[in-house]
Amino acid sequence: MNFLEEKILQEGSIKPGNVLKIDSFLNHQIDIDIMRQMANEIKRRFRGKEVNKILTIEASGIAIATVLAEMYDVPVVFAKKSETANSTDDKYVAQAYSFTHKQMNQVFVSKPYLRDDDKVLIVDDFLADGQAMHALIDLVHQAGGAVVGIAVAVEKGQQNGGKILRSEGYHLESMAIVESMDWETQTIRFREQPKEVCESYNLKLINE
Amino acid sequence: MNFLEEKILQEGSIKPGNVLKIDSFLNHQIDIDIMRQMANEIKRRFRGKEVNKILTIEASGIAIATVLAEMYDVPVVFAKKSETANSTDDKYVAQAYSFTHKQMNQVFVSKPYLRDDDKVLIVDDFLADGQAMHALIDLVHQAGGAVVGIAVAVEKGQQNGGKILRSEGYHLESMAIVESMDWETQTIRFREQPKEVCESYNLKLINE
Repeated sequence: MNFLEEKILQEGSIKPGNVLKIDSFLNHQIDIDIMRQMANEIKRRFRGKEVNKILTIEASGIAIATVLAEMYDVPVVFAKKSETANSTDDKYVAQAYSFTHKQMNQVFVSKPYLRDDDKVLIVDDFLADGQAMHALIDLVHQAGGAVVGIAVAVEKGQQNGGKILRSEGYHLESMAIVESMDWETQTIRFREQPKEVCESYNLKLINE
Repeated sequence: MNFLEEKILQEGSIKPGNVLKIDSFLNHQIDIDIMRQMANEIKRRFRGKEVNKILTIEASGIAIATVLAEMYDVPVVFAKKSETANSTDDKYVAQAYSFTHKQMNQVFVSKPYLRDDDKVLIVDDFLADGQAMHALIDLVHQAGGAVVGIAVAVEKGQQNGGKILRSEGYHLESMAIVESMDWETQTIRFREQPKEVCESYNLKLINE
């Protein structure tokens, strides 16, 4: 079990509808030590790869992207989800369906912040069906840039996003892969990396 | 002129309707070096103050809050602006009118992430009329915590937020205070700190 899987077992909870809630260290409160460990691990898994920009999407991805960008000493760009009154520039626009908010989102980056010589590492907190991730990839490609890799904190292995991205040839690294989870028993099953062996843990037993 | 004022002159632009656009290093693309300098300067201005939590609001505040939290080695909490499907917990809720989006926003923090023994440094990218800032203060007070101070990147000195917060007795530190700006001439005037003397700069001349 790695540091993130341990933290998920200690502080996460499973909500009805296949929702893993990790608000205490990633999605609402941000644990700086976990961010540092994730950034270190992401940098290790992409060692040897040249990266000149970190791309994420507002809002939860920004913290991990920022810590990672400090390590690479490159800028972060965060894609935005909605038009704002002072956003009148030319932009790259992609579509993504949000299962959380149950609506189509426009995702965009202003043109000056993605370039044809960019080597982009895309980072986000969750990967489920891969809608948001494909929108980010689309934005990089619209600009003519290259996607060096994709790093996520938690991949929901029972949804198809990771499988599709890997089959498309992207170098995807997930710090934790949830193979399955069960609300009633509060049991979570991680895919062991890279051996693809699963282990089960019961959150109630661990936290008692 | 300090590092942030210089960066604003180099890369900012003034849009109609009193909008200062600094998307290239703060609100869309994030310049890590500027974040580090801001975090250093904020920590310097609040030296001697005990801080156990950084509070900000999604999305643009998260990057600076994260770098600052690394220096203090404390958690970040970011207040959220809208209800999401998987957010069913008890929360502290405050109201804030957004002039950018021209609507009332509910701003909330889940109860476990603000406590009565918290010593909170509130951080945000912009301070204009102070609506969002007062909502964040309200959330800390609802939890029974203490607001140690308020740090913002850019204060719009021609709006009343800063004046009101200082008159209420808050320790407010702004890394740059825009005293006035003019779209037609692309001229910006910073309040010199702490002497309250103003200097004028023309963005077109500087960038030619």
